[in-house]
Amino acid sequence: MRLTPSIVNEKVDQAVALLEEFEIDAWLTFVRETTEAGDPVLPLILGQNLTWQSALIVTRSGDRIAIVGKYEDDAVKSTGAWNEVVPYVKGIRQPLLETLTRLAPQTIAVNYSLDDVKSDGLTHGMFLLLNEHLAETVYGGRLVPADRIIRALRSRKTPSELERIRKAIAVTQQIFGEVSEFAQPGRTEMEIAEFMRGRAAGCGAQTAWDANQCPIVTTGPDSMIGHGYPSAELSIHPGRIFHLDFGVMLDDYCADLQRAWYVPAEGETAPPDDVQRAFDTVVKAIHSAADALKPGVQGWRIDEIARTVVTDAGYPEYQHATGHHVGRAAHDGGGVLGPKWERYGRTPFYKIEPGNVLTLELGIENTGGRGYIGLEEMVLVTDTGCEFISTPQTILPMLEY
Amino acid sequence: MRLTPSIVNEKVDQAVALLEEFEIDAWLTFVRETTEAGDPVLPLILGQNLTWQSALIVTRSGDRIAIVGKYEDDAVKSTGAWNEVVPYVKGIRQPLLETLTRLAPQTIAVNYSLDDVKSDGLTHGMFLLLNEHLAETVYGGRLVPADRIIRALRSRKTPSELERIRKAIAVTQQIFGEVSEFAQPGRTEMEIAEFMRGRAAGCGAQTAWDANQCPIVTTGPDSMIGHGYPSAELSIHPGRIFHLDFGVMLDDYCADLQRAWYVPAEGETAPPDDVQRAFDTVVKAIHSAADALKPGVQGWRIDEIARTVVTDAGYPEYQHATGHHVGRAAHDGGGVLGPKWERYGRTPFYKIEPGNVLTLELGIENTGGRGYIGLEEMVLVTDTGCEFISTPQTILPMLEY
Repeated sequence: MRLTPSIVNEKVDQAVALLEEFEIDAWLTFVRETTEAGDPVLPLILGQNLTWQSALIVTRSGDRIAIVGKYEDDAVKSTGAWNEVVPYVKGIRQPLLETLTRLAPQTIAVNYSLDDVKSDGLTHGMFLLLNEHLAETVYGGRLVPADRIIRALRSRKTPSELERIRKAIAVTQQIFGEVSEFAQPGRTEMEIAEFMRGRAAGCGAQTAWDANQCPIVTTGPDSMIGHGYPSAELSIHPGRIFHLDFGVMLDDYCADLQRAWYVPAEGETAPPDDVQRAFDTVVKAIHSAADALKPGVQGWRIDEIARTVVTDAGYPEYQHATGHHVGRAAHDGGGVLGPKWERYGRTPFYKIEPGNVLTLELGIENTGGRGYIGLEEMVLVTDTGCEFISTPQTILPMLEY
Repeated sequence: MRLTPSIVNEKVDQAVALLEEFEIDAWLTFVRETTEAGDPVLPLILGQNLTWQSALIVTRSGDRIAIVGKYEDDAVKSTGAWNEVVPYVKGIRQPLLETLTRLAPQTIAVNYSLDDVKSDGLTHGMFLLLNEHLAETVYGGRLVPADRIIRALRSRKTPSELERIRKAIAVTQQIFGEVSEFAQPGRTEMEIAEFMRGRAAGCGAQTAWDANQCPIVTTGPDSMIGHGYPSAELSIHPGRIFHLDFGVMLDDYCADLQRAWYVPAEGETAPPDDVQRAFDTVVKAIHSAADALKPGVQGWRIDEIARTVVTDAGYPEYQHATGHHVGRAAHDGGGVLGPKWERYGRTPFYKIEPGNVLTLELGIENTGGRGYIGLEEMVLVTDTGCEFISTPQTILPMLEY
C-alpha cells in the first residue's frame, strides 16, 4: 500500500536525525522482491515494493539515495523522500560500490537484530550477498546492526502517525459499541467475527492482524484463547463471559484492544462475585502499570508491577507480556513490557521513550468456569508519564439482550 | 490467510518426498512474528501466522513437528498438517534441543538462499539466534541451505495448485474482456486501474501484486513502463497503444498476464505497419520460447531464444527476464527464464521441471512513438514440452469505441 508522501518524508527525516543521535554514518536497507519477502521497515521509509536487489541509503549528513532496478526508479522518485535515485539494469554491485566509495562511511548500519523482529528485515541470504558485493572493499568490515535506529524510528511516533493511530482506535471502539448491540446468546463466535470484519470493511478499514484471527472471540471456558480462531460451534451463553480482542488498521495504522462483557443468566442482575473480582483485578493491574509508565523505565519493570497485582490477588500468572508497541503493525517494534523470559530476548530491557504508543493488556483464564476475562488498553508515553488514548474499560457491563 | 487444509497437507507430503529425493534428514523453518516478517514458504506448509519463535520440522522419515508458543498450538493443530505440536511458554531453546536430540539429523536444511528470494525466509537475526540456540550442540555445524527443497516445493505444482491457477487465469482473462469494453479515448490510466480492481473485487479476487501497481496501465510513450503507477493525467489516446499488465489472486493463487490493443485514430482501419510489426515480433518471440521450453533445459536458454527474435528483428533488447514462475505469488520462486546477468544470480541456470508454471513475457518500448507493445502468457511444463494455460494473444485488436 502506498502512503501519502508526508509520512514517508517525516520518517526519513527522522532517520537522518537518528543517525546523528547514534553517531552512525550511513544506514543501508538492502532488499529484493519485497512483495512477499518485505523488510518491515520498508513501509515507513518508502511505502511501496521493490523487485530487484535495491539499496536505500540514508546518511548522517542527509543524503537519501535509492539504488533500484530500472523500471522502478520513477515510482521511487514519486515518493519525494529519496533525492537521488540511481537505476540499474544488469546488477547492483557497481552502482552500490560507487555510491559507498563516494560517501565513505565509517559505519554502515544494516537491518538485523536478534531480539527485535521489526529491525530484522535483512534475510540471511541477502546478508551473505551483501558481503559478496563488498568482499573486495573496506566496507564489508564496517557493517553494524541498525536495530537501534529502526527501533527508535518505529517507536517514536510522529504527529501524523499519532493522528492515524487515534483514528484507528476511534473506529475500533465504535465497532465494539456496535457488536455489543449485535451480540446475544446463541450467536456463534464466527458470526460475531464476521459481523465485526464487515463493520471494519464498512468503515474503510482492514483488520489490524490476520483477518482469520481478528477479532479473537471467546465465549466461555471451551474457546481457544490467545491466538486462536473463532469457532462456528461455540456461541455466546448466559452465565459466561464474552470477550473480544480486536483492532482495525486504518490508513496503515493500527489499534489493538480487548473488551469484556458478562452475559447474565436468567435472574442475574450483576456479574457473579468471582467474575467481578477477576475483572477488578485486571483493571487494577492495567492502571497500576499505567501509573508507573514513563520515559526511562525498562519494560520489564512495568510488566512486573501488573503481574504482581494479578499474582498477589491469588490468580495464576498470565503467560504473555503486559504490553507491546502499536503503530504500523499491531505488534510494532521497539521492545515489550514483558518479563525477562528467554523468548523476549533483550526486548524487556529497552527503555520507554516519549512518543511511544503501547498496549497494556492482561487477563485471567477460566474465571469460575465462566470463561476468559481480559482487557487491553492503549497509552501514549508523554515526557513525564503516559496518557490513555483508548477509553479505558473500568466497568464490566452486563450484555443486554 | 488460512488455506483449506488440503493444499497445506499436499505440500507437506511433497516436502517429505523431497527430503528423500535430496537426501536431507530434516528441514527446519524457523520464524517469529510472521504477520510482518513472514517466511515466504510459510503459506505453503502452514497457512497461518506465528507470533513467537517457532520451529516447523519435517523429516525424511515423515515426522511433522511444530514447536510453537502456547496459545498458538491449537491453531497449528487445526491445520491437520503437523502431527506433533509442542507448545512452550518461556523459551523455545529447550524443546527445540530436545526434539533435535531425539531426531538426531545429520543434516538440517534452513531457509536461506543467495539467489532465490522465496527460499530466503530466514532473517539474519534469526540465523544468529538459531546458532545461539545450537551453540553447545553438534547441530550448529549441520545446517545446510534449504533452497533446493523450497524451490522444488514451490515450483512443482500439485493438481490442486494447478486448478487454482487456472481459475485465476480465467478470472484475469474475463476482466481483460470487460476492460476492453470499458476502455475508450479519454479514460485515464487511473480510471482503467480502478475499474479493473473493482472487477477483481467483484469476482472475490485480490490483485496478484501490490494493488497500487496492479494493473500496470500504459497509454502511450509518456506512461511509466515496468513497475510504475497508473497516472491520473494520462489517458487512452487515438493513435497510441493501450497496454495492461495484470493478474488476480484467487484462493491464494495468481495469474500474471499482459494484453495490448491499438487505439485507432480517425480513419484508421488497421494498426500502423510499425506497430503491427512490433506486435508480431513479440508474438513470435513468445511462441519460439514456448516451442523450446521443456524439462531439463536451463532458463537462460529459453530467454536467449526469445531475446534473439527481438534483437534479430532490429529492436533493442528488453531489460528484464523472459519468464518467471507463478503460483502463490505472481513472481513465484524456482528460477527465472532470464539472461545471465548479475542481478539474477544463479537462478537462470536452474533447470525446468514438469509441473512448473511459467510466464513468457516481453515487450518493445515506444514503438513509433505510439507506446509500449508487450505481451505475457502463462504455460505449464509437461513431461515433454509445455502447453499454454492462458489463451495466447496472437492478434492485435483495434480498440472499439
